[in-house]
Amino acid sequence: MKKIIKNGTIVTASDTYVADVLVEDGKVAAIGRDLPSDGLEVIDAEGCYLFPGGVDPHTHLEMPFGGTVSRDDFETGTIAAAFGGTTTVIDFCLTDKGVPLKNSIETWHKKSKDKAVIDYSFHLMIGEINEEVLQEIPQVIEEEGITSFKVFMAYKNVLQADDETLYKTLVMAKEQGALVMVHAENGDVIDFLTKKALDEGKTDPIYHALTRPPELEGEATGRACLMAGLADSQLYVVHVTCREAVEKIAEARSKGYNVYGETCPQYLVLDQSDMERPNFEGAKYVWSPPLREKQHQEHLWNALKNGQLQALGSDQCSFDFEGQKDLGKGDFTKIPNGGPFIEDRFTVLFSEGVKKGRITLNQFVDIISTRSAKLFGLFPEKGTIAIGSDADIVIFDPAVERTISVQTHHMAVDYNAFEGMKVTGEPVSVLSRGEFVIKDKQFVGALGKGQYVKRKRFNAAENKQMAALSKS
Amino acid sequence: MKKIIKNGTIVTASDTYVADVLVEDGKVAAIGRDLPSDGLEVIDAEGCYLFPGGVDPHTHLEMPFGGTVSRDDFETGTIAAAFGGTTTVIDFCLTDKGVPLKNSIETWHKKSKDKAVIDYSFHLMIGEINEEVLQEIPQVIEEEGITSFKVFMAYKNVLQADDETLYKTLVMAKEQGALVMVHAENGDVIDFLTKKALDEGKTDPIYHALTRPPELEGEATGRACLMAGLADSQLYVVHVTCREAVEKIAEARSKGYNVYGETCPQYLVLDQSDMERPNFEGAKYVWSPPLREKQHQEHLWNALKNGQLQALGSDQCSFDFEGQKDLGKGDFTKIPNGGPFIEDRFTVLFSEGVKKGRITLNQFVDIISTRSAKLFGLFPEKGTIAIGSDADIVIFDPAVERTISVQTHHMAVDYNAFEGMKVTGEPVSVLSRGEFVIKDKQFVGALGKGQYVKRKRFNAAENKQMAALSKS
Amino acid sequence: MKKIIKNGTIVTASDTYVADVLVEDGKVAAIGRDLPSDGLEVIDAEGCYLFPGGVDPHTHLEMPFGGTVSRDDFETGTIAAAFGGTTTVIDFCLTDKGVPLKNSIETWHKKSKDKAVIDYSFHLMIGEINEEVLQEIPQVIEEEGITSFKVFMAYKNVLQADDETLYKTLVMAKEQGALVMVHAENGDVIDFLTKKALDEGKTDPIYHALTRPPELEGEATGRACLMAGLADSQLYVVHVTCREAVEKIAEARSKGYNVYGETCPQYLVLDQSDMERPNFEGAKYVWSPPLREKQHQEHLWNALKNGQLQALGSDQCSFDFEGQKDLGKGDFTKIPNGGPFIEDRFTVLFSEGVKKGRITLNQFVDIISTRSAKLFGLFPEKGTIAIGSDADIVIFDPAVERTISVQTHHMAVDYNAFEGMKVTGEPVSVLSRGEFVIKDKQFVGALGKGQYVKRKRFNAAENKQMAALSKS
Amino acid sequence: MKKIIKNGTIVTASDTYVADVLVEDGKVAAIGRDLPSDGLEVIDAEGCYLFPGGVDPHTHLEMPFGGTVSRDDFETGTIAAAFGGTTTVIDFCLTDKGVPLKNSIETWHKKSKDKAVIDYSFHLMIGEINEEVLQEIPQVIEEEGITSFKVFMAYKNVLQADDETLYKTLVMAKEQGALVMVHAENGDVIDFLTKKALDEGKTDPIYHALTRPPELEGEATGRACLMAGLADSQLYVVHVTCREAVEKIAEARSKGYNVYGETCPQYLVLDQSDMERPNFEGAKYVWSPPLREKQHQEHLWNALKNGQLQALGSDQCSFDFEGQKDLGKGDFTKIPNGGPFIEDRFTVLFSEGVKKGRITLNQFVDIISTRSAKLFGLFPEKGTIAIGSDADIVIFDPAVERTISVQTHHMAVDYNAFEGMKVTGEPVSVLSRGEFVIKDKQFVGALGKGQYVKRKRFNAAENKQMAALSKS
Repeated sequence: MKKIIKNGTIVTASDTYVADVLVEDGKVAAIGRDLPSDGLEVIDAEGCYLFPGGVDPHTHLEMPFGGTVSRDDFETGTIAAAFGGTTTVIDFCLTDKGVPLKNSIETWHKKSKDKAVIDYSFHLMIGEINEEVLQEIPQVIEEEGITSFKVFMAYKNVLQADDETLYKTLVMAKEQGALVMVHAENGDVIDFLTKKALDEGKTDPIYHALTRPPELEGEATGRACLMAGLADSQLYVVHVTCREAVEKIAEARSKGYNVYGETCPQYLVLDQSDMERPNFEGAKYVWSPPLREKQHQEHLWNALKNGQLQALGSDQCSFDFEGQKDLGKGDFTKIPNGGPFIEDRFTVLFSEGVKKGRITLNQFVDIISTRSAKLFGLFPEKGTIAIGSDADIVIFDPAVERTISVQTHHMAVDYNAFEGMKVTGEPVSVLSRGEFVIKDKQFVGALGKGQYVKRKRFNAAENKQMAALSKS
Repeated sequence: MKKIIKNGTIVTASDTYVADVLVEDGKVAAIGRDLPSDGLEVIDAEGCYLFPGGVDPHTHLEMPFGGTVSRDDFETGTIAAAFGGTTTVIDFCLTDKGVPLKNSIETWHKKSKDKAVIDYSFHLMIGEINEEVLQEIPQVIEEEGITSFKVFMAYKNVLQADDETLYKTLVMAKEQGALVMVHAENGDVIDFLTKKALDEGKTDPIYHALTRPPELEGEATGRACLMAGLADSQLYVVHVTCREAVEKIAEARSKGYNVYGETCPQYLVLDQSDMERPNFEGAKYVWSPPLREKQHQEHLWNALKNGQLQALGSDQCSFDFEGQKDLGKGDFTKIPNGGPFIEDRFTVLFSEGVKKGRITLNQFVDIISTRSAKLFGLFPEKGTIAIGSDADIVIFDPAVERTISVQTHHMAVDYNAFEGMKVTGEPVSVLSRGEFVIKDKQFVGALGKGQYVKRKRFNAAENKQMAALSKS
Repeated sequence: MKKIIKNGTIVTASDTYVADVLVEDGKVAAIGRDLPSDGLEVIDAEGCYLFPGGVDPHTHLEMPFGGTVSRDDFETGTIAAAFGGTTTVIDFCLTDKGVPLKNSIETWHKKSKDKAVIDYSFHLMIGEINEEVLQEIPQVIEEEGITSFKVFMAYKNVLQADDETLYKTLVMAKEQGALVMVHAENGDVIDFLTKKALDEGKTDPIYHALTRPPELEGEATGRACLMAGLADSQLYVVHVTCREAVEKIAEARSKGYNVYGETCPQYLVLDQSDMERPNFEGAKYVWSPPLREKQHQEHLWNALKNGQLQALGSDQCSFDFEGQKDLGKGDFTKIPNGGPFIEDRFTVLFSEGVKKGRITLNQFVDIISTRSAKLFGLFPEKGTIAIGSDADIVIFDPAVERTISVQTHHMAVDYNAFEGMKVTGEPVSVLSRGEFVIKDKQFVGALGKGQYVKRKRFNAAENKQMAALSKS
Repeated sequence: MKKIIKNGTIVTASDTYVADVLVEDGKVAAIGRDLPSDGLEVIDAEGCYLFPGGVDPHTHLEMPFGGTVSRDDFETGTIAAAFGGTTTVIDFCLTDKGVPLKNSIETWHKKSKDKAVIDYSFHLMIGEINEEVLQEIPQVIEEEGITSFKVFMAYKNVLQADDETLYKTLVMAKEQGALVMVHAENGDVIDFLTKKALDEGKTDPIYHALTRPPELEGEATGRACLMAGLADSQLYVVHVTCREAVEKIAEARSKGYNVYGETCPQYLVLDQSDMERPNFEGAKYVWSPPLREKQHQEHLWNALKNGQLQALGSDQCSFDFEGQKDLGKGDFTKIPNGGPFIEDRFTVLFSEGVKKGRITLNQFVDIISTRSAKLFGLFPEKGTIAIGSDADIVIFDPAVERTISVQTHHMAVDYNAFEGMKVTGEPVSVLSRGEFVIKDKQFVGALGKGQYVKRKRFNAAENKQMAALSKS
């Protein structure tokens, strides 16, 4: 079945132009002015942008945390993502020490298989590196197409790995062509500060921020970057929140290290003062790393603008205010860490970034879609509107003005962290592999229609080009 | 007349994919798999890359310097450019104090009009800022489409402007939507060091380098960046050669300043030791800023890779070794400054950058073409292969191995600074506005066929998008 | 005539201990516990510190500026200095282009000879460097003992010298063993900003600050440091006010450059908001560079603490509020630049620095006296309490609490910039060459008793030691 | 018994002057010109410097390491120290987890009590922080006068503590008035690199350096500094070897953090190439951190010059080449880490530092003696020549030229790492508490004559002054 989207303004990470797009077999088949449309399903996109579908490289759907489970699962989470303009998510598959990696992956497949309405893939957490793990990894890459591995430098005694594990993971990643992701905060010091705060009777949500100062994120970020450089490997720092961390990434990149950084919409527009909201509402804004003082926002925007940070993840990990967040009343350490951002990531960046002149339209596409697709082995199937790519396309009306609210969002969670925020722009229709998931702002997709995507190795596309050049 | 280029691998600053390209009325009309080609001129590009034609933002054709005139003019210069894969050049129009700007522009039009075989445009030098100049500039922008202005911080008592002039130019550029270009070296100190060297009998070409140390480029670069930031204006630093200057640009960009940097192929692959070649051959390598010690190359490559530098200019300003360079025998200050790079800029970056894994294919296109087109108001007509853009296309064979030499180059000058260098890749055919200039490695163009291009204001495309958004 | 000061706590840049000090022939002859005091004039200093007399390396007494003359001359200025604990001042001798240096020096001798009550010396301004100047300088050093030369990078068209002049001065200083002092602000840009402000009707005192932003001080400081390093010479940056400048000095010092920095008490405790005082009182706080936003103070204190800045000058240049400062009503550029600090420099640093725990007692002595004596060729005669040194001694009661006020100060000027500030500590008695100038808080000195001091070349003491070592 | 040292040139951290010194009851009683000497023991020091005795803040005498024990004990070690001009050493008392601190201290008292010929004190290692340790520490400070505690960030599974332990130690130190010392290398990564090297058959001494790259020292140094700043505590980084670490310390100090750094003579004059000496002689140069490439030396010298590093420790930990170092033949990880520097620390700094013009005489005294005395609570009894201080005095002939050699040194170890190095200057006589230990280059002291010194809390002297000021 062929479709033609007419007269939209196509935007890629590099180009902006008006043209028609012919979709065939779920792929982009042709782009041109006045393409013949006889016999085709015609979609009029005049006045709208056609963006490649968003790629969200950082979600935690149905994830267990501190005795509870994140509220949005692969059903509500991917539906909300689609409404927001995202057509691919990469979720974090947690692992347990001593348990074969494939068991954990199997668990994640079960969570997602019959629920996802858009394409998805998995990152894999590395909690320990031993002979068994090292033997299993090549298989995981080959069979599952999982080519990114995450190490936690925080959450002492729970998820935290030591430097040796991180370094071994970096060495493995270099050998195998994988990308290492790191949650960079100094968990040891945080553990001390947290206990000290509780000892002193400091139990409100704001202490979650005050016991995890930005210096500790900067420190861990610098440490991870240094290790990546020394191992001549590749590193992706998730959820960068502050000036200190940005500077470390910039410094590493200046040395030519293959280091990349992601921030999240919440760090761009919310700040630490939100955690002091009365009636325990500060708990709605508890996640790690925490929100920072407002002046850090400018550093994050500058870093997106000048390329020191490259990607935007949602770090979706939603918990209801009632029944989940309130587990932490009287003890901020018991507040489940996380928030709901999967749906608004796309428009918040457009509205605050493009509309306010902080980044260009092309940078927007790069940050929201293309770069993540490239870094995580999804490109060029995902991440662009180009001949041969999957027809994952967002028809976006840049003129709509609306207010974000729990009343209208599609996530399952009972609050929205951006509640009341006015934004400009809205996805009108969203196609995944050439089929509508959202049409005229209505969900028209189907559970389980989303496909699990095996990803290529890090820089595989580049490497293949190089190989081709060498042969020739 | 329509043409179709079949089966090439199209490369833009963002994408890489195989498709056919339909060219109509000098523009790209459609891109797709298996486009119908009946009745069209068909060009087979299988196995080749299709790159947008190179944009060279920095040439000095037929330029007077030190009592002589640069050897390549708009005829030989643009023919050589085309052979090399470049389809647009922006040449520097020099001005004289007290003379109306339009007179100088007229002179440059005369030099170029009936000679250029590819499209071209002009930057304008600013030597002084007074009421007359300020009154004339809006006209220059409006009527001539000249939207970039160059200030020299070096060449004391000749081209050098003081800080007040630079600052006023930055303020004007902000108001008018123009981009300020700067030659950043501290001319005062260079003047002292140069005279001192001559006083001490140090007259060989190498003293050209030793009297212009990288610290002085770093200093002036930092000063210009600071002024750009303070004026909230935009700055483009031409021919960045060294670590010191890269660091200043990176620092400014980290603060969110609109600062951009260009390097040149000669600084990426040649080094200061070339200036010590015997038999006065060091003079072939005399230009400003001078070649640096080899370790600086790594910093320049890293800066291109991580986006601290964005563009590559040739700084073409060729002088014959015999009859021109030898004016400086016995006095290095009399060696005409400049060299021949317009032809090899494109392939040198491909071969040393892409082929050696330092930058990606997409970065190559961005650096060699797209970014310059965007910065200088030529985009999207120039700088990309997209629907509606000029069909300025290079069909590039990445497998050819060849050796650069004066024997085979097409410039008029009597030596090649890259003599003997082995490179991979070669433009096979080159189209300008859909017509062949180079076909199967033969020149098939015509003198005067190249058009003068009026350029848009700085960020006009972006600004227009913003305006559209605001209205909507 | 011998004196003995008993039981004071002697403080040097390194040591703190209780002992008696024997003064003989104007010199310190012996230090010890329970020195015999029979037949000597005995001064009891129990409970007091004995500090070496302050050395103020930066004063402008009876200096012409903008059509008026600074209010305090060598009489009132040195009396006030003595009351404050300062026993040596180095004043800036201004010069005019085309006039022999010796003429200017003669003028300064006339201003000071019969007035000064404490020792004094001169720095010499360099406005141009030509053959005549270069020929005269060795004589100036040899005959006048003037071994420090000041260059202005600001005050365009008045005092400002270009980079070539600064560089030549640095080269000369290296050859002659002199120290170059620099007023580091970018005068060109300031000139533009100043005119622009006036054009826009911005005439209040606060615009003096807003047209001289800290970035321009940082820029000029970095430029001067770079030149000093390149010339392998020595540089002293006067009146450093801001983070930007501190960072440049620190960076230069990290590279091993012989660069030193001075700040002033006003920058440590006052801030830009003082310039917004109503009723034109902001004009009392107009000097160059201007006061900065409060956060810069912390950077200055840190720099004193960790040695990135080494000295404290008063930059005394007082103008009456009535009759002088008010020349600038309606045009801030006409406000005479300067303020009255010669008297309070010493106690303000003690009170805010030592008493508040920001610097140690020994650092206090180093900053207020020793380091300036060493840098400017006055050591060890000045700058310490050690055997053989001049008995320039301050008996200081650290327990006194008092309030600074024009009511009680000894300067001739009609206001005090620190009015109302509470400080701890006060000089009780002050000796110059073993004789009381201040005794029990009363002036007991005599006009003209202060001697002109010829200074040694830069690092002469060190160099002599080195020479001695080499010979042996 | 009184002594008078006549006509020496007294040098302190601030002053240099010729005078006589009267010594009484082991203290400096008076300093002056031509002090009466009737009936006193007169020592002629004309032409010599009188330096305060060196304070060596970093020794490992009779220390167990890797199954062997460092060769020099408190007898040979302190005799050699005295010959070299050092009159106080602070040795590291190692502890074991689970063993009361006092037991370890007792062990160290037994090693030293009847052997030391000069004064000595102990630092205490912290391997873990638990309730028992926290309870014992105040006692250790109070009763033993041990006010500095060392944490190792390297030697995984042996001495290494985690970040939590380091942070807790910093917090404790702030509360108790102690100084934390840190061995800053990332032990986790070193552990990995070391095992990997052995796996690859890389067993020669040079791999000790190649598996401990400077980046890992820089990383750990930055991490420790960050923690010190966050805890608002005080930190002393031992044996800084490289540019990377210097930069981290400088950065921390710029922020006002109370961070100090020590380097060692071996890092100033030896380099990594020494570890490649043939016949396994590279093993003589194996210690941690390892020697670095030569270019790091300049950064260390600059840091001493500009105050970014403050102190010089010997890190004495000698092992015989035969019988000890050769344990590591075929496996560099089995080479006992350490070398013999206690004797030559003093003269190497004088000869390479002062004599070569890199630091001043006063800086020399500060680095070799005063600053360590101040930082570690020994001042003013140790660290200066001032009234009331211990008469720990070195009479130093700056004219002697000699060659360092195992043939002439006084350490027990069978080689000298500076073998063959020509130095200028030599201690002629050395007094400890007013009595000769070395007289005319002969040992005249006695075993056990050295006293154990209880040290004051960190900044106790400063704090006392502040308290006095506050009371008054």
